[in-house]
Amino acid sequence: MAQGEFDLIGRYFEHQNVKREDVDLAIGDDCALVRVPEGCQLAISTDSLVAGTHFLEDADPKLVAHKALASNLSDLAAMGATPAWVSLALTLPTFNEHWLNQFCEGFFQLAEQYNVQLIGGDTTKGPLSITLTVQGFVPNGQALTRSGAKVGDAIYVTGQLGDSAAGLALLLADTSCHDLVLSHALKERHFMMTPQVEAGIALRGIASAALDISDGLIADLGHIVKRSGVGAEIYIEQLPLSSELIAFCSTQEQAQQLALSSGEEYQLCFTVPKHQCIEIESLMMAKGIQVSRIGQLTQSSGIVLLQQGEPIDWQVSGWDHFVSSHK
Amino acid sequence: MAQGEFDLIGRYFEHQNVKREDVDLAIGDDCALVRVPEGCQLAISTDSLVAGTHFLEDADPKLVAHKALASNLSDLAAMGATPAWVSLALTLPTFNEHWLNQFCEGFFQLAEQYNVQLIGGDTTKGPLSITLTVQGFVPNGQALTRSGAKVGDAIYVTGQLGDSAAGLALLLADTSCHDLVLSHALKERHFMMTPQVEAGIALRGIASAALDISDGLIADLGHIVKRSGVGAEIYIEQLPLSSELIAFCSTQEQAQQLALSSGEEYQLCFTVPKHQCIEIESLMMAKGIQVSRIGQLTQSSGIVLLQQGEPIDWQVSGWDHFVSSHK
Repeated sequence: MAQGEFDLIGRYFEHQNVKREDVDLAIGDDCALVRVPEGCQLAISTDSLVAGTHFLEDADPKLVAHKALASNLSDLAAMGATPAWVSLALTLPTFNEHWLNQFCEGFFQLAEQYNVQLIGGDTTKGPLSITLTVQGFVPNGQALTRSGAKVGDAIYVTGQLGDSAAGLALLLADTSCHDLVLSHALKERHFMMTPQVEAGIALRGIASAALDISDGLIADLGHIVKRSGVGAEIYIEQLPLSSELIAFCSTQEQAQQLALSSGEEYQLCFTVPKHQCIEIESLMMAKGIQVSRIGQLTQSSGIVLLQQGEPIDWQVSGWDHFVSSHK
Repeated sequence: MAQGEFDLIGRYFEHQNVKREDVDLAIGDDCALVRVPEGCQLAISTDSLVAGTHFLEDADPKLVAHKALASNLSDLAAMGATPAWVSLALTLPTFNEHWLNQFCEGFFQLAEQYNVQLIGGDTTKGPLSITLTVQGFVPNGQALTRSGAKVGDAIYVTGQLGDSAAGLALLLADTSCHDLVLSHALKERHFMMTPQVEAGIALRGIASAALDISDGLIADLGHIVKRSGVGAEIYIEQLPLSSELIAFCSTQEQAQQLALSSGEEYQLCFTVPKHQCIEIESLMMAKGIQVSRIGQLTQSSGIVLLQQGEPIDWQVSGWDHFVSSHK
């Protein structure tokens, strides 16, 4: 690519509908200049998606953009932060107008939905990859960390679990599915996930700990357990499974195992003191956010799976981007 | 790389000496949590360095880390911002302990020097690249933008120009130099540049426009000229040239042309209303910062080069990372 093409690429990102009042200077100078509201902490997260590792080189650029931004917004959601700004570092092997158009469409569609303004970034030549840094606000002291959970707290998840892993298996053709509608629905869940921003904001001041499920429920809950110095038990019958996942899986057990291990779900897993369970369930219901109570925190260390009250010894591995079968 | 190796990599970045009071939560949760001082805007810049495009695959990782962070800090300097935090997205093809150790050494050495805390990031598997997002503070309304320059303002640069291009030519063996001391000095200037943070801070409230020289003086001054709606004339005898550059070049003219076109200098180019020239020169002298008055802004459009008061028609190209001879 020549410099002229890079200038052109820059222009793709200048046109956006989001113009925030707290952005004093966006793209076009040495730095962006922004303002953080008084009484708020700034929450910041950075994630990279690399072709061949996190998505297929020929994946639909619109879906790749959605996934990149959604997974970053999910980190803000997991802190209870309100999204504000994003910086985009895009590395491209060639100048491809169609790819850029599609990428921008997916990116700005989601950015508009959450009132997130693109404030800057960098475009470079090289193997395809996307790095985003998202920033958002959370009122002082109300952020949802991983370390505040207590023994006895109830464990919840938002939405349904397992669809992302099923969708990925179909995308990678590790497995087949003759029901095309079902297959399409599950693939779409893998790429078009919704960051649980509203849920995260609603949980401020109530949840004792929270994170988003990116590596699999068991692996991620492990972080809360470790950082909070507690144990956990999971009631596997309570795992929220979609009808599509149940239809896709040959057994109930297979669906539950996928729900426990599926990464890139971007649902929230959070803990709540028991006396606030009714409050949180009513609040979430009023907001139309599905939550399921799936277990509780215990004194013993580690995570125990319970089936009808009895421990079971399923070996559930966490999600691993690097040893998975992406090619 | 397996997950275990990624956990290991994470540990390389947990140990740092900078612990800022405004960082409430650094590495280890879904987001970092930080606070911006009252009365300040936040300046944010993102830059990627990609192996094969911005540095050679086998380049010294310590120098690569220095270059990555220094070029980002230079963007903060160009806004007059005080550096505060950095996020690091690192993509690595393999787990290489020696590379990581050296990279961290270069990175944290510079970070400490400017009291910049690493607050988070992402490590992924893929072709070697580094993306940094740096953030810093500037008192409300005092940022140095590119658009405030006026006709008649004097044009200044910090430091000396041209050494980086000479160093790069030697690194790429485009040219040879039998004086090993000279050769080493010029190569070092290419990689070990000092971001002009102190100069940027000193210029707050005085400079009418500023930027850092990353694409070459002429190309970068072009941004100020364009954004401020003015023209410029440059007195080429006034270009600050190092004794090393003069020794390296066969003619004075060649050295001046390098000074006009050399990118990745990371010196500041700034403009000052004429009645404040003496003030700024005294201030910079007191701080031990070399500045040279090299021209002034004019009414006519474009940039004119003057030699002893007469226009000359040198064709000076800007620096282009993408069409240069990096292989």
